[in-house]
Amino acid sequence: MRTGIRALSEFSRFDEECDVLIVGLGCAGAAAAIEAREAGADVVVLERSSGGGGTSAMSGGVLYLGGGTKLQRACGFEDSPEEMFKYLMASVGKFPDEEKIRAYCEGSVAHYDWICAQGVPFKATFYYGCSGEPPTDDGLVWSGSEKTHPYKDLAKPAPRGHVPKHPHQTGHVLMKHLIASAREHGARIHGDSRVTALVLGADGAVVGAVAERYGEERSFRARGGVVIATGGFVLNDEMLQRWVPDGLRCSMRVAADGDDGSGIRLGMAAGADVAHMDKASISLPVTQPWGLKRGVIVNGQGQRFINEDTYYGRLGEAALFHHGGRAFMIVDDEIFEKPEYPNTGNVAAVGESIAELEAELGFARGSLQSAIAQYNEFAARGEDPLFGKDREWLRPLVKPPFGAFHCSTENCLYAVFTLGGLVTDADGRVLDPGRRAIPGLFAAGRSSAGVSVGSYSSGLSLGDGTFFGRRAGRAAAGAP
Amino acid sequence: MRTGIRALSEFSRFDEECDVLIVGLGCAGAAAAIEAREAGADVVVLERSSGGGGTSAMSGGVLYLGGGTKLQRACGFEDSPEEMFKYLMASVGKFPDEEKIRAYCEGSVAHYDWICAQGVPFKATFYYGCSGEPPTDDGLVWSGSEKTHPYKDLAKPAPRGHVPKHPHQTGHVLMKHLIASAREHGARIHGDSRVTALVLGADGAVVGAVAERYGEERSFRARGGVVIATGGFVLNDEMLQRWVPDGLRCSMRVAADGDDGSGIRLGMAAGADVAHMDKASISLPVTQPWGLKRGVIVNGQGQRFINEDTYYGRLGEAALFHHGGRAFMIVDDEIFEKPEYPNTGNVAAVGESIAELEAELGFARGSLQSAIAQYNEFAARGEDPLFGKDREWLRPLVKPPFGAFHCSTENCLYAVFTLGGLVTDADGRVLDPGRRAIPGLFAAGRSSAGVSVGSYSSGLSLGDGTFFGRRAGRAAAGAP
Repeated sequence: MRTGIRALSEFSRFDEECDVLIVGLGCAGAAAAIEAREAGADVVVLERSSGGGGTSAMSGGVLYLGGGTKLQRACGFEDSPEEMFKYLMASVGKFPDEEKIRAYCEGSVAHYDWICAQGVPFKATFYYGCSGEPPTDDGLVWSGSEKTHPYKDLAKPAPRGHVPKHPHQTGHVLMKHLIASAREHGARIHGDSRVTALVLGADGAVVGAVAERYGEERSFRARGGVVIATGGFVLNDEMLQRWVPDGLRCSMRVAADGDDGSGIRLGMAAGADVAHMDKASISLPVTQPWGLKRGVIVNGQGQRFINEDTYYGRLGEAALFHHGGRAFMIVDDEIFEKPEYPNTGNVAAVGESIAELEAELGFARGSLQSAIAQYNEFAARGEDPLFGKDREWLRPLVKPPFGAFHCSTENCLYAVFTLGGLVTDADGRVLDPGRRAIPGLFAAGRSSAGVSVGSYSSGLSLGDGTFFGRRAGRAAAGAP
Repeated sequence: MRTGIRALSEFSRFDEECDVLIVGLGCAGAAAAIEAREAGADVVVLERSSGGGGTSAMSGGVLYLGGGTKLQRACGFEDSPEEMFKYLMASVGKFPDEEKIRAYCEGSVAHYDWICAQGVPFKATFYYGCSGEPPTDDGLVWSGSEKTHPYKDLAKPAPRGHVPKHPHQTGHVLMKHLIASAREHGARIHGDSRVTALVLGADGAVVGAVAERYGEERSFRARGGVVIATGGFVLNDEMLQRWVPDGLRCSMRVAADGDDGSGIRLGMAAGADVAHMDKASISLPVTQPWGLKRGVIVNGQGQRFINEDTYYGRLGEAALFHHGGRAFMIVDDEIFEKPEYPNTGNVAAVGESIAELEAELGFARGSLQSAIAQYNEFAARGEDPLFGKDREWLRPLVKPPFGAFHCSTENCLYAVFTLGGLVTDADGRVLDPGRRAIPGLFAAGRSSAGVSVGSYSSGLSLGDGTFFGRRAGRAAAGAP
């Protein structure tokens, strides 16, 4: 048999039976467990670590939600599902899954209420001036490129980063409450249980799984279905080499121990299709504090390549995937301040003139000088004809000394996680290459290809993980 | 059952039996058939068109071979497997398959002799001045970036494009002889037979296939194995949207009717792994005749982005994948001539000065002027510090009038075909996501991920298709 596949005929009995078997207790698995229980199913969750939480628990905790949530309204922002839909369709990559995005936007207001109903606290205050999770316990932030070119002209901007109440990294707050809720709902959670194979019937349907617990094998029969919610594959070097080779150069892989692609590989062995395996979220948070958006970012040839006020997910993707992961941020004395994230703000060069900076950085003579001269000329008029940077951040760099911060992979924080995975429909059913659902197999979270397939906005993975995790749980439970 | 999978238990008998069943009669299928017959196997080939030949037959016909072939030596060129290996490892993309490339380079001299032994004629003359297939019937050409930065410093350059004797497109010459040889070897070839499913035993082994012929289903038992040699997926819009969305913008898809990814999808449904599905060959042949390598190619912001003397496969990939498929080639009166391929050389602007050209092209004031001024300054000294263009092609653009040729997707030839597919070992065995061979399943040619996973050099698909097609045929026949 194929790696990760066992035949039902091998088993005369199973160690445990249930209706819905969930593999992985991150945000998608917890949401699936809660909803499958709500639908009346007997639920078992197998989690390979002792406690669960996964990458969700060590993440920033931002949920990308909108359409006019209670939190958005309490903070004085207008939004609608249609504007959220327009932004996501334009921003999350080429040919995103329109059906999923439609469902996600239309269900977003109710989904926020559901998250709150699980006990997750949000403070009804807005934090201005950062991208992604705030340093405070405020509840709402900008977490995407909504207010910048070209998106500001395609959809009415609104902040959609919903952050559980806690200073800075808040993923653990989200997961504490989701896991507690799953337990309260009566899901049977087994830790230290690593799923090694799916059990297939003779007709190819998934009817259970086999797990290893402290070196012993335990078999599980799932009458309704198995939900794969094991996360992405950013910790699997071989898969990364194949699909996201530049990811190997990133100094930080955003992942708990489990993100080795095991769930994706199990699904493929069962005949599942995959999508967008080459896509990843690449964060390059060098324009934080936001005053640094007034800087000029250039590639290894001294050329600008993006509007510097764009979200750091889009910036990181452009720098790593299209400019070889080699870049510098140029500042003058007027706007100088240190980028605030660890391993950002390493100084590459300082000079009394741009010419001096250019020489110190090893650029060809004239290259950086002409780029900055051109930028300055237009910035003085509040224009950026090359990349459409917003007038708010445009001012000529003229006050010496000038400086350059490293924004290259070897000298700066690049944070990566993968976005591709199993192909699912909007109810979490895993599809084969002919778009037929594989009976009994479901997936959600980053083991599936979700809402974002590029140009990442923060909060889309916790957002679509919980949203489609719930739907997968319901579908596996046979609920309408 | 999954789409494209049938259970052996469904069949009480098969319409036809054989040792090796080959799906698709392009270069990989024909090579597999010949070698499986040589190994003593009873061979059936199922081809969905009436006559066979596939994309190989309508291609340029270049085979990328080297290491010191008879043809290279007859034309006075020195080469070795080691230099060929160094070039390929450096040029064909990130993390290429070293084992396959090693085998390919070491077997290349003998493989050329084998191709000749099938009756394929080569004229022992070298053609200078084009990239890829020549307009003449000469046998040897440059078909990659060997002589350009950065490769010229990494491996000793040699021309490796081996072209069957015929003016211009010669793929049909190759396929005429390979198909004739397969017939002479006694392979039973059935045309108009489209394989719709693989037949799997209870243990997951591939034991046959089902084909449709004039609306009727016929079943085939394969005692040794099934070889998938159906080509890539460039004609499948849905797969292209998912994996190579920019490919949809290319004006030419290099494909015969069959390249709809059917073989890849059949393999996946059987539990196979895939690789490099996001990779494609993108040709932008605008520097032909070679005198045009003296031009300057800029992106949509008026910035240079590559050494213009690089091979058109690498140029096309850079322009389409990293610069939005928007580019222009700037020339002056001194070097002006028309690019020679159909739909190249469309004039975007003409001007008495670069400033005028800049305005006419809608570039921001100063952008193109500074790019050309910088280029000219260094070119006058025979230097290109930005991109390493070879001194041979460096001269300042100073003689008015100046012109710009369109090199954007909507106004210029971009030719695309896909490079990703089923994961195989160096003997063509299809692997599952755990790197275990799926018993009875083999693949070769562009339904598998092969030697090139980016920055295409011409001839690598006919080259690795025939080379690994032969190995897959032998392995399926049970030969050592």
